[in-house]
Amino acid sequence: MGSRVAERMLTWQTQLARRAGVELCLRRVLVRDVGKPRMVEIGRELLTADAAQLLDDPSIQVVVEVAGGDEPMRSYLERAIASGKHVVTANKVVMANHGPELLSLAAEKNVDVYFEAAVGGGIPLISAFRTDLQANRIERVSAVINGTTNYVLGRMAAEELPLESAVREAQAAGYAEADPTDDVGGFDATYKLAILGSIAYEIRVRPSDIYREGIDGIEPVDFRYARELGYAIKLIAHTQRHPGRVEARVHPAMVPLDHPLAQVEGANNAVFVEGDLVGQVLLVGQGAGGRPTASAVVGDLIDLARSIRRGVQSRPSFSFDDRVGVIPMGEVVTRAYYRIRAEDRPGVLAAVGQVFAEEGVSISSFIQKDAWVEEKTAELVITTHPTADSRLQRARERIAQLEPVRAVSSFLRVF
Amino acid sequence: MGSRVAERMLTWQTQLARRAGVELCLRRVLVRDVGKPRMVEIGRELLTADAAQLLDDPSIQVVVEVAGGDEPMRSYLERAIASGKHVVTANKVVMANHGPELLSLAAEKNVDVYFEAAVGGGIPLISAFRTDLQANRIERVSAVINGTTNYVLGRMAAEELPLESAVREAQAAGYAEADPTDDVGGFDATYKLAILGSIAYEIRVRPSDIYREGIDGIEPVDFRYARELGYAIKLIAHTQRHPGRVEARVHPAMVPLDHPLAQVEGANNAVFVEGDLVGQVLLVGQGAGGRPTASAVVGDLIDLARSIRRGVQSRPSFSFDDRVGVIPMGEVVTRAYYRIRAEDRPGVLAAVGQVFAEEGVSISSFIQKDAWVEEKTAELVITTHPTADSRLQRARERIAQLEPVRAVSSFLRVF
Repeated sequence: MGSRVAERMLTWQTQLARRAGVELCLRRVLVRDVGKPRMVEIGRELLTADAAQLLDDPSIQVVVEVAGGDEPMRSYLERAIASGKHVVTANKVVMANHGPELLSLAAEKNVDVYFEAAVGGGIPLISAFRTDLQANRIERVSAVINGTTNYVLGRMAAEELPLESAVREAQAAGYAEADPTDDVGGFDATYKLAILGSIAYEIRVRPSDIYREGIDGIEPVDFRYARELGYAIKLIAHTQRHPGRVEARVHPAMVPLDHPLAQVEGANNAVFVEGDLVGQVLLVGQGAGGRPTASAVVGDLIDLARSIRRGVQSRPSFSFDDRVGVIPMGEVVTRAYYRIRAEDRPGVLAAVGQVFAEEGVSISSFIQKDAWVEEKTAELVITTHPTADSRLQRARERIAQLEPVRAVSSFLRVF
Repeated sequence: MGSRVAERMLTWQTQLARRAGVELCLRRVLVRDVGKPRMVEIGRELLTADAAQLLDDPSIQVVVEVAGGDEPMRSYLERAIASGKHVVTANKVVMANHGPELLSLAAEKNVDVYFEAAVGGGIPLISAFRTDLQANRIERVSAVINGTTNYVLGRMAAEELPLESAVREAQAAGYAEADPTDDVGGFDATYKLAILGSIAYEIRVRPSDIYREGIDGIEPVDFRYARELGYAIKLIAHTQRHPGRVEARVHPAMVPLDHPLAQVEGANNAVFVEGDLVGQVLLVGQGAGGRPTASAVVGDLIDLARSIRRGVQSRPSFSFDDRVGVIPMGEVVTRAYYRIRAEDRPGVLAAVGQVFAEEGVSISSFIQKDAWVEEKTAELVITTHPTADSRLQRARERIAQLEPVRAVSSFLRVF
């Protein structure tokens, strides 16, 4: 990622200077190992393994951070801002966890913090919320914002692969890391949703406020049922405004096939925004990778350079209302899909139906398959109408405990 | 459109002031008829039918223009800029025809011209090119940028309606004007492509440079063949970079069903951008209508107000290279679809094939239907591989003159 940024800065100097109105000069590159061979030819004298050589150099006006992870990057960025340097960062973890603090320190120091690359690669998102959509009250943001899981789910759907095989394919294709937990567990999407939600509503949304579920419970057969019912399965990051509060959640969901988010392919990202004036806007592109990230980082750099040239801070400053909270998941109204394995004998349906009735959950569709004749078990696939999530969860637990039920093999929200 | 802008300014004063950092005060509204009843309650003292009351009032800092059309709007905007006022406009005709002049006058006067609303309603487009995508060399822009024709083509496809009926439906639904020429003839899309092309490549693309064809030659049966061949029919605005020149054209085209532009529904707009770093980005939303346009106009106003508050011009200025020209359509390499009605007798195929061979056009698919047994005529549907458009056109003319051919009933490019 860093090499792509350096490459564009070094090989596109004329164009960047023309567009920024000022020359962008690469002064120092912080790396772990100065001796390591690099993809891009960078003068050896620019490389350093000592952060102080950037952070304490008063001639450096802008610090670009594309390393990722919480510490030491948070401290580096804080130190840069505190000493009056502007910052361009692609760091979703730092921005999700400490963004408001860094932005308010930046406002105090009259410097800018740009972070377009932290969410959705080169897709214009942060800038869209900061300027284009400013005349709107944002009503909701729904996104497929993690390319790795989207690739994995796509492979599972296409080939009926188990999760582990699809993850291995994603690793081989360079879409998943050696330890895929951050993506598969929904953590990455949660950071990004925290950033998007904070900016969309001008409130403080912490990653820990967001309900999070990964894709690890999904089995190949769920994709078959999803198709049968007219859905795709996607890892959805969703936030929605309610009176005085917002909804914010990351989890796999059944998405109707004609919904734009159902059609997001491969490792792409897509963000669906609804504003009260603009209506629905959809923004799609590569959400990760060195080149798209460099597009966002260098785009931010150009905008920043323009404002530095004019001697002013050009960006609107942020404010985050701390009084607007996130609705607990149990209170969120949603629909659900249950896949239940039960003994194939009289009374099962009645017992399951009774639980739903007692929890006040209304059923939308019902499919029974007698898949395992020799075992005398059948698979019940049920989707519900919208209800409070706590009721759906209670129904799930109670059904799992019914005597003829072997397991609630899957539980997914329906979007 | 004007009412929606006024409404947001009058009813959202607090929010706008907070976001802009300064109060936005509606000072004067130019209307044709001061006495006419208005959708929005506007103090009668704000209304005037005299342009001078806005343009010559030194206390007015920003002129917002949402009236449309060339004159007198071009003169008004020029006068506003010349007297040091900033301008926010939704006027695609003025910006397509006179944008570079107005922008250079504005740079001279140190004021800003914002025109996000001129293309694609509230979809962030101009701002995306001006900032987010600045680190990229833009390779191509392909768009469904006229909502009216997209609605009309959608109705024709769904119900096999003739053009006239679909246009009447669009008029009834409020998507088409009483005189639909501007949309149906592709003029509107041409203005918008001129603006997008100019900004994407930083060159001067005049509407008159752009090859333009409307949707009026398309018949319901073409949609049936399109489906059979795996295409949708869309009015496409396309521009693409070539060494030293660009391609720029507006015409109906067969678009592969799995291409994102084939999936744009109703009156929506979609813009597909390819940059050398960012890869492919797709931006979709409502391209017209009072509310989306107001979203863009008021968004521009907020950004402008921020920059006025800081006492500087915040936007990058434009430059347009006049040496990069548009490739004549005849030289553009494209694929084509022919629907030919011919007598059903030996030798027809040979004759048609001979023409294609002589013109160096290679055939990609061929369907023959003996649709009219009593008349002894058949319909030949042919798609070609990519060739210079002049060859495709010459083949079309020569085939129409073949003795057994009654007519080349349709000729469409394949995207």
